[in-house]
Amino acid sequence: MRIYNFSAGPAVLPLPVLEKAAAELVEYGDAGMSVAEMSHRSKAYDDIHTAAVELLRELMNVPSNYKILFLQGGASMQFAQIPMNLKKNGKADFVITGEWSNRAYKEASGILDARIAASSEDIKFARIPEIKDISPDADYLHICTNNTITGTRFTEIPDTGKIPLVADMSSGILSEVFDVSKFGLIYAGTQKNIGPAGMAVVIIREDLINNDNKLPVFLQYKSHADANSLYNTPPTYTIYMVKLCLEWLKSQGGVPGIQKINEAKAKILYDYLDSSALFRGIADKAHRSLMNVPFTTGDDEKDKQFVKEASAAGFANLGGHRLVGGLRASIYNAMPTEGVQALVDFMKKFESR
Amino acid sequence: MRIYNFSAGPAVLPLPVLEKAAAELVEYGDAGMSVAEMSHRSKAYDDIHTAAVELLRELMNVPSNYKILFLQGGASMQFAQIPMNLKKNGKADFVITGEWSNRAYKEASGILDARIAASSEDIKFARIPEIKDISPDADYLHICTNNTITGTRFTEIPDTGKIPLVADMSSGILSEVFDVSKFGLIYAGTQKNIGPAGMAVVIIREDLINNDNKLPVFLQYKSHADANSLYNTPPTYTIYMVKLCLEWLKSQGGVPGIQKINEAKAKILYDYLDSSALFRGIADKAHRSLMNVPFTTGDDEKDKQFVKEASAAGFANLGGHRLVGGLRASIYNAMPTEGVQALVDFMKKFESR
Repeated sequence: MRIYNFSAGPAVLPLPVLEKAAAELVEYGDAGMSVAEMSHRSKAYDDIHTAAVELLRELMNVPSNYKILFLQGGASMQFAQIPMNLKKNGKADFVITGEWSNRAYKEASGILDARIAASSEDIKFARIPEIKDISPDADYLHICTNNTITGTRFTEIPDTGKIPLVADMSSGILSEVFDVSKFGLIYAGTQKNIGPAGMAVVIIREDLINNDNKLPVFLQYKSHADANSLYNTPPTYTIYMVKLCLEWLKSQGGVPGIQKINEAKAKILYDYLDSSALFRGIADKAHRSLMNVPFTTGDDEKDKQFVKEASAAGFANLGGHRLVGGLRASIYNAMPTEGVQALVDFMKKFESR
Repeated sequence: MRIYNFSAGPAVLPLPVLEKAAAELVEYGDAGMSVAEMSHRSKAYDDIHTAAVELLRELMNVPSNYKILFLQGGASMQFAQIPMNLKKNGKADFVITGEWSNRAYKEASGILDARIAASSEDIKFARIPEIKDISPDADYLHICTNNTITGTRFTEIPDTGKIPLVADMSSGILSEVFDVSKFGLIYAGTQKNIGPAGMAVVIIREDLINNDNKLPVFLQYKSHADANSLYNTPPTYTIYMVKLCLEWLKSQGGVPGIQKINEAKAKILYDYLDSSALFRGIADKAHRSLMNVPFTTGDDEKDKQFVKEASAAGFANLGGHRLVGGLRASIYNAMPTEGVQALVDFMKKFESR
């Protein structure tokens, strides 16, 4: 029996996607083989690859002067690849809103002159800090739009003027409408709202793609952009799964449709947290994430007891991130509203005991 | 109906693996979820991850002073990552035996002083050249043990003395027994004999892992070695598929068992090529690959006609690599002997017409 999986990533996938993938795994259509066996230079695979890229462009309304890349290595690879590729003046600004933006900052620090433009570390990342000044000669300003661990999100995208805005959207992409034209580069690991783990999506404004920097060819965005992410063998089966997930998202009314569902879904949990005498949310109300909801009873032992009982009742992965402890429910696009409602019902019962 | 797929990679996978994966895709055992949905920090996933690493160690008899890494980016990423990590004196030697070893050489050339120690380009890579001298201060010597495009292989592994031997084994790994202790580093894209596309396996002698070189943390082997390839989210579902493929290989008698099968399987095709009045093999007999068999009628039009008719008869992907043309049958571990026999029968019929 399938359980409710509140993992922060890799995370729950839409059931219809898994069922379709299972039915097609041994033989895809009339191809006579699995997608996992297809040459990446074959027509059959190319149709899947192209459909995945085009669906993402359609769903996010990506302007034509942006390239969509499917790259291996996840977001962690991008922490290095972005500064390597975007380095020009040799400076970049970072907004520190939690562990992941901090890792992006640290990795970049070895590659260029990285500066902290704003941070909410002093308040344990409970909210998004104000960005008061941006270096006028920064090659880019980096933000993490949704913070998986502390459950905050940028409810407004900062205006960085001529400085390209670079955003780690790993846990927020496709969950709400973003105006891509406000960004120079968007990146996201696939394992939350896009598909299975093993890839990152990079959406990059064409003028930021260059090859002036003597990087290894494989690490240059240009190599992958010029080859439509077929410079080398891509993770073909992962891209097929991504295509299925994007088709499912389209069937939910696309990003505007899922955003409405996500807002209503998160509200069920937040409303209960705000009314509960036992549980309370961690993030500041003004910047609450729609995807990751950290909470706590305020008592370590009680939190652990809750994780244990919830797990036994079919609610998996409700422990907080190992760096902060407490509790967390990740409620990505593929988490059905019933799952959140069932969780809240269970929390109410736990509270009443 | 499943067809015979002679793709050079991504390539045919064992049917029992695909059937098992399909049956478990929606729900894995009693986990209540798909492997593709599991947190990479969960016990259920860790069991899979550990089993995959240990199976590979067992099957290749990897000594305990070697680490096994699962890295994203495929072999092309390793073309850059190897010189970045192994650079010490800043020199490396390369044996050029085809397109892929040449790409490894070219990518390394931007990172260190890369020197060609031997090449068979003058004879269109029809055989493996003799290695007459190795730079005494080279950080490593690089070979490609099996050449996918021209169908040659190192039938003997060169003795490089104290110079670490680095080998791209993408299309030869697990097809025949290798003495891992002869190598400093072995790497291979997974999409031929290991599993689906989207990952590389790196087997590295521990003394070659260092972090003296100020590389981005993500690009250091040390980061991944210290974390058992869980430094960041790995391609979890791909690793699960790899585990299934390795279990299947073990059931075939491990590497010694499959080597016998492969030798007999390749012999069927080579024997026919040697006796045919229409088709002939490309590679020198002394260095014939067990995995990739390029051949030709000597007539472009006839080659194309063969690909067309073979494809219609259920023998897919028999065209040669786009760089060299002609014909090629890739007969990796998962290609059943019946498939090769059926191909030869079809070739005989084609010849008789």
